[in-house]
Amino acid sequence: MLNIDKLYESVKANGHVCVGLDTCADYVPPVERKKAHNDAQAVLAFNKALIDATVDAAACFKVQIAYYEEMGIEGLKAYSETLKYIRNKGALVIADIKRGDIADTAARYVKAHFSGDFEADFVTISPYMGMDSVDPWLKEAQLHGKGAFILMRTSNSGMRDFQYLEILDNNGQNVNSRRVYHAVGDKLSALAQRNKGAYGYGMFGAVVGCTERDEAALIRNNYPNLFFLIPGYGAQGGGAKDAALLLREGNGGVVNASRSIITAWKAGNNEQADNNSAAAAARQAALTMRNEILEELSLNSCKLAL
Amino acid sequence: MLNIDKLYESVKANGHVCVGLDTCADYVPPVERKKAHNDAQAVLAFNKALIDATVDAAACFKVQIAYYEEMGIEGLKAYSETLKYIRNKGALVIADIKRGDIADTAARYVKAHFSGDFEADFVTISPYMGMDSVDPWLKEAQLHGKGAFILMRTSNSGMRDFQYLEILDNNGQNVNSRRVYHAVGDKLSALAQRNKGAYGYGMFGAVVGCTERDEAALIRNNYPNLFFLIPGYGAQGGGAKDAALLLREGNGGVVNASRSIITAWKAGNNEQADNNSAAAAARQAALTMRNEILEELSLNSCKLAL
Repeated sequence: MLNIDKLYESVKANGHVCVGLDTCADYVPPVERKKAHNDAQAVLAFNKALIDATVDAAACFKVQIAYYEEMGIEGLKAYSETLKYIRNKGALVIADIKRGDIADTAARYVKAHFSGDFEADFVTISPYMGMDSVDPWLKEAQLHGKGAFILMRTSNSGMRDFQYLEILDNNGQNVNSRRVYHAVGDKLSALAQRNKGAYGYGMFGAVVGCTERDEAALIRNNYPNLFFLIPGYGAQGGGAKDAALLLREGNGGVVNASRSIITAWKAGNNEQADNNSAAAAARQAALTMRNEILEELSLNSCKLAL
Repeated sequence: MLNIDKLYESVKANGHVCVGLDTCADYVPPVERKKAHNDAQAVLAFNKALIDATVDAAACFKVQIAYYEEMGIEGLKAYSETLKYIRNKGALVIADIKRGDIADTAARYVKAHFSGDFEADFVTISPYMGMDSVDPWLKEAQLHGKGAFILMRTSNSGMRDFQYLEILDNNGQNVNSRRVYHAVGDKLSALAQRNKGAYGYGMFGAVVGCTERDEAALIRNNYPNLFFLIPGYGAQGGGAKDAALLLREGNGGVVNASRSIITAWKAGNNEQADNNSAAAAARQAALTMRNEILEELSLNSCKLAL
């Protein structure tokens, strides 16, 4: 079965939350950090507790490799072990690596992240170099059912610098304020059309932040065959209402949150927090987020039914 | 001293060649590969021989991390050791990582690649997410003199997909076929103007491929304060004539070549090639390339003098 179909089914069973394991040592309860052999091991042990506690409350996990690269070789060992732990549980993991390079080099990244120490179910890809930096991923994905999310319109304010530039079409016209991210979306949608799963979504989807509410419904309508990885929830300002606009018929996307879930333990009386209590707080935060989104979706469908 | 100034002086002393250590195990002489403990160690030993043989024939080295990520944890150890080996020789190394992520996450990548196991002198950055994905690199670079090259117009054919899109300016006009990569170049040039080294080049430069000869002179003239990292030489079709058009007053850029240098040993009678003979062939290839570029530059200045 294609990973995109597994993800669709996981959303149906567990809701839309993607738990972001952007874990740095400062997020680990101090008691546990002190006990650990090193910061990377502390992060790994904390991740395992978080995964155990949220696996049935989440559609999938996303691991941001930057937080592990920061810790060097030891950090990347913890990254590798985190991915294995998730996959051994039968859960899905998105490697948030945002790699993007030309054909030959991309093929190396493909091998790195679709097999071996860093094998993931999905990756994220940066499109700046063009579709020939996406093709090697697709070729391998077709063999093994892997998936990817390509950056389309991200959730940071800097996305206005280049993703937002208005562009000319083949006739030298700018119609409907067409922007760079639409050109990316169009290419991805065409690719999805040629490589579709059982539920109508392409094997490769797009990263679309839930931080620009005005555009959300239009983006969702324009790209019905793209499954969205949706960042920007919580710490970045997006809410359930914003995220729901990027979903489709109750599915079609996962909504990532990291800090609001994995540092939820810091909100309470946390002097004595350990991995168990921190993971319980994370589970509660994930469930709350899941329910907020589900509630918003049911409201939306009520509105449609009126 | 800023790394960009060191690089300028290195070009002056050693020419424009940037030796690309995009080294996979297939590029290592079979005799040596068999002797090695594993492929990653074979690559590392080969790299050391290549570095020793070319250090005085090259302006700098560029290490493409994808080739090491491909080999997992062991590969990244070889990557780390390769960077250390270059820096211990007092030579400059560009980490070709093409990372690009939002502020908080970018700060993690900064720590990963400007310090610790993976410390490099320069990195490459992908600009798709905008200038707030570049700023954290700059902030740290200002403290330690580090440098970066941001993707502007790459050497692969896929760059036409997005980098080449024609864009509207603030007045809703498309003047002089202004494209996405010009918008990137303009932002980088403004940043360079505010963060300039002793020789007039910004601490952060741009990646501009030497594969589109028609545009080269214009790009060079439009961005006099940007030092260029120039891919596309050799295997990708660019030649000395193309590269020279992207240089300025005999400096202002380094020209990367990888396969044509590090697999030069495959051209001859190579059954018995070892790291020493392969490195000697690499040195010869680097010297030839260096001289081709220098010759082209002297022709160009002769032409100017006429």
